[in-house]
Amino acid sequence: MFKVIKKEGSARRGEFQCAHGGVVQTPVFMNVGTQAAIKGGLSAFDLKDIGCQIELSNTYHLHLRPGDDVVRQMGGLHRFMRWDGPILTDSGGFQVFSLASLRKIKEEGVTFASHLDGHRIFMGPEESMQIQSNLGSDIAMAFDECVENPATYEYAKASCERTLRWLERCKKEHDRLNGLPGTVNPGQMLFGINQGATFPDLRIWHMQEIAKLDCDGYAIGGLAVGEPTETMYEIIEAVEPYMPADKPRYLMGVGTPSNIIEGVARGVDFFDCVMPARNARHGKLFTWQGTLNIKNAKYKLDDGPIDPQCDCPVCRQFSRAYVRHLFAAEEILAMRLAVMHNLYFYNKLTQKIRDALDEGRFAAFRAEYSEKLSQKI
Amino acid sequence: MFKVIKKEGSARRGEFQCAHGGVVQTPVFMNVGTQAAIKGGLSAFDLKDIGCQIELSNTYHLHLRPGDDVVRQMGGLHRFMRWDGPILTDSGGFQVFSLASLRKIKEEGVTFASHLDGHRIFMGPEESMQIQSNLGSDIAMAFDECVENPATYEYAKASCERTLRWLERCKKEHDRLNGLPGTVNPGQMLFGINQGATFPDLRIWHMQEIAKLDCDGYAIGGLAVGEPTETMYEIIEAVEPYMPADKPRYLMGVGTPSNIIEGVARGVDFFDCVMPARNARHGKLFTWQGTLNIKNAKYKLDDGPIDPQCDCPVCRQFSRAYVRHLFAAEEILAMRLAVMHNLYFYNKLTQKIRDALDEGRFAAFRAEYSEKLSQKI
Ligand SMILES: [Zn+2]
Ligand SMILES: [Zn+2]
Repeated sequence: MFKVIKKEGSARRGEFQCAHGGVVQTPVFMNVGTQAAIKGGLSAFDLKDIGCQIELSNTYHLHLRPGDDVVRQMGGLHRFMRWDGPILTDSGGFQVFSLASLRKIKEEGVTFASHLDGHRIFMGPEESMQIQSNLGSDIAMAFDECVENPATYEYAKASCERTLRWLERCKKEHDRLNGLPGTVNPGQMLFGINQGATFPDLRIWHMQEIAKLDCDGYAIGGLAVGEPTETMYEIIEAVEPYMPADKPRYLMGVGTPSNIIEGVARGVDFFDCVMPARNARHGKLFTWQGTLNIKNAKYKLDDGPIDPQCDCPVCRQFSRAYVRHLFAAEEILAMRLAVMHNLYFYNKLTQKIRDALDEGRFAAFRAEYSEKLSQKI
Repeated sequence: MFKVIKKEGSARRGEFQCAHGGVVQTPVFMNVGTQAAIKGGLSAFDLKDIGCQIELSNTYHLHLRPGDDVVRQMGGLHRFMRWDGPILTDSGGFQVFSLASLRKIKEEGVTFASHLDGHRIFMGPEESMQIQSNLGSDIAMAFDECVENPATYEYAKASCERTLRWLERCKKEHDRLNGLPGTVNPGQMLFGINQGATFPDLRIWHMQEIAKLDCDGYAIGGLAVGEPTETMYEIIEAVEPYMPADKPRYLMGVGTPSNIIEGVARGVDFFDCVMPARNARHGKLFTWQGTLNIKNAKYKLDDGPIDPQCDCPVCRQFSRAYVRHLFAAEEILAMRLAVMHNLYFYNKLTQKIRDALDEGRFAAFRAEYSEKLSQKI
């Protein structure tokens, strides 16, 4: 399923194959389509145009709307949204712990109130697996507790012990579901999630334990949730040696272009983040010279593309002046064009990282771009 | 510029050529891009995919944002929005009389407050021509007063006398601007607008007068603004014999599919309406069986396309269940897909009307579809 084809320091150039789509080239940035659609009015067909390799949808959101039972009856998420490439679904855990209210955590799972209409929902490891099985994604994520930073050592320890027990239950249920007749995607894989807040010893202990369960890949969760960036890097460095070398590694919810380059340098293969789409909707655009705000008055008469070095469908066709006008006029087209450009930029970023790794010049790439890409121009 | 190539009763099959794009086949429905963008996140490139022949932008809106001076500096509207086909701009009159507040009408023109920030603006025939010249559209519309129905005979008479004087000034200024060195589009045409509220004698008198000015085309304005549909048809029938037979005729802001079929039957060549895009944004979709509301619960598990008879990019790819989900989840993609389908439907409607005219079976087409297309299914 996963093969490391080249290394430079801890950075890995790999190939990954799952039940849908061709070979995924890693490092890879997954494009977030929370509710089976990409914010900003992009369809699955647009994802092809902007170089997306893996689409990521949210279990919690799809369970609420349209309901995973509906998606299952419609043939699964691939068929529902007309995306034939790989799909990863998160476990719902992050949304349960960040979006829902009136949470009650027990050993069995979590009871919480829907953020939409307040109705009570129970979700535990088995429920999360069942929902993801109904969605038929290629990669299911284990149901975990995402502890907010800072957390006490005691709480973090108890939580990641429970998350380990939950992973054991996830794996059992996942195996059972994949073996059922009529399962939407019997080739669905399961990734385990490392937790342990910002405590290296907990992180390492937890990683060692979950590694024993032989998941199809391993994620580092619970980072980029409030801790300093340096702390995040230290945690990745601490836990990385204990991650199985032959399995893909996924740093969840991260991050800036710099975070991605630095994550790759520390041995990460998979990334996802809502930042490129969210920033885009506020006019904050990434370029190879740094970030810019297209709403700025200086672009009023600028006939050039958002980024002269970008060959995305937006930069090939429209001017900064036009995109700026669309934002000022509050046209939905502004969102669409900005999101297309930013997602393309992220997909291209990982492509450039891969090219650099292929050619043994990732260190030089990192030195040139890691800081530059986050600077405002 | 315009040629009637076939007639069936009063219905006309024609060809129209302007400074941009190929030959426009009429009857034609113009797709509204108020602020140089189509509501729902459609770009000029999407317009090509949905069969748009002429794009229509709004002088009033573009004067406010980004400013017609900006558009001029960016090379005109075609270059600004990257649409190389024909563009018609309205005169701003309709918005001045429907959107702006604190209006003061004098012989010179109208002083009003911007609906955006309240600043005072003066617009008369010369200003409207200057703005439209800066935009560089292919068809400029004369600056007129759009009287609300019902209006008193006295007011309507005085108003359409003034609108006649304004047209004389429009024509003079338009000729002057087209002759200036550096004019964005020296091939810009001017359409006059017939007014006279719902009084046939005023309508006819006004039409006879403006016909003498030899404009490039003639519009019927001030309809579909509150009067009964039958009244609208009666006015068209009354005024049509007085419209120059060798010039295109444009029924402004109309209407439903039925209105368009009935307009064609009464000798109209050009149409525009915000209805298909506006309805789409509320989930109201046109089909060849009638109209439907895609938000309806009955489409929850419907794997078929919006309209089995439609071959638009949306119907070729997505299901009713998916589009319904996008509306329920309040995804922008819902707007985009719905607007694409509805505009495609309108463009296809005029294509089917043209095919029927070409084949001498427009009467049969009208009998089959005029009522049906407005029925709810
Ligand atoms: Zn770009
Ligand atoms: Zn369609």
